[in-house]
Amino acid sequence: MKFCNVCGHGVDLRVPPDDHLERHVCGHCGNIQYLNPKAIVGIVPEAEDGRVLMCRRNIEPRLGLWTFPAGFMELGETSGDGAAREAREEAQAEVEPLELIAVINVPYVSQVYLIHRGRLRGTHFGPTAESSEVRLMSEGEIPWDDIAFPTIWHSLKFFFEDRRRGRYETHSLDLKYRPRPPQRAEISGGNI
Amino acid sequence: MKFCNVCGHGVDLRVPPDDHLERHVCGHCGNIQYLNPKAIVGIVPEAEDGRVLMCRRNIEPRLGLWTFPAGFMELGETSGDGAAREAREEAQAEVEPLELIAVINVPYVSQVYLIHRGRLRGTHFGPTAESSEVRLMSEGEIPWDDIAFPTIWHSLKFFFEDRRRGRYETHSLDLKYRPRPPQRAEISGGNI
Ligand SMILES: [Zn+2]
Ligand SMILES: [Zn+2]
Repeated sequence: MKFCNVCGHGVDLRVPPDDHLERHVCGHCGNIQYLNPKAIVGIVPEAEDGRVLMCRRNIEPRLGLWTFPAGFMELGETSGDGAAREAREEAQAEVEPLELIAVINVPYVSQVYLIHRGRLRGTHFGPTAESSEVRLMSEGEIPWDDIAFPTIWHSLKFFFEDRRRGRYETHSLDLKYRPRPPQRAEISGGNI
Repeated sequence: MKFCNVCGHGVDLRVPPDDHLERHVCGHCGNIQYLNPKAIVGIVPEAEDGRVLMCRRNIEPRLGLWTFPAGFMELGETSGDGAAREAREEAQAEVEPLELIAVINVPYVSQVYLIHRGRLRGTHFGPTAESSEVRLMSEGEIPWDDIAFPTIWHSLKFFFEDRRRGRYETHSLDLKYRPRPPQRAEISGGNI
């Protein structure tokens, strides 16, 4: 970030008056460009038979690994709205957002995940530019070793545990350390 | 947002390839400047005697009204870290962050509130540039009609209800409609 997005002049990194952290400050127009953590919204879509809708990533990072629909929250939407939008965009699926089941801080990438469970409406879903494959899976079919991100793995665990005991609640988790990138041999269970 | 913060050239508002919303796109270097919702972190600091630490706002908006410590989440922190930081900055207080007690979507300002309860450490606290007055208050002393924001009001209600029943959980709420700005006569209970 080198230029002011209001006036186009160069910005400096310095601590503004009444602040305590360095910000990108424009010496020409005075604009301050803040960088903020991003919210990721996601949803675990449950079909009538109890299976959940999973997507195989067709994009980097973690191309080829599995997730439920999730992505950056957009301006003007709630976490539930955003989660349902992601299901449409990534899986062609209409999903009614229900309880917030997980809030996961990921400070090493400055992200907060807000994960809902949802009810899959109808039977239509399918691949998209972001998902090479979209499938309904029972708990036993979830590819636990091929899940794209730790946040997704933990959210799925919360979902299935809560479903088993018959009560959903919002789980909180801080993932404070960046996981070591999984090695291919580990991901495949050592079969390579 | 008129200029690219990477190269300083003018940006256009258009839908990038593989996207579905208008973004600020630089025709010169290709950079896309996304606008994202912001996370607000806050904390209800509880003293040993059960009173909670409240701050009278010394800044706009809602100058003179009451809140607990809360503010924009910063890069690289968890919601709990950030909530504790706000307590130091706004109330000179050391607070240990505990459970997440509220997640509140406020889509009309593109914000998500993440509110923790916390344990006030020691007995030191006091006014700051942001808070003209900082006070410990029992539930009966909370100025419910002079609370700065609906998110703060709801979070306090959740906190006291959960404390009464002896179990804290994470409450979710969507505030979908902008409240009508309170009139002075209403705030003071009609005494003016
Ligand atoms: Zn400027
Ligand atoms: Zn550019």
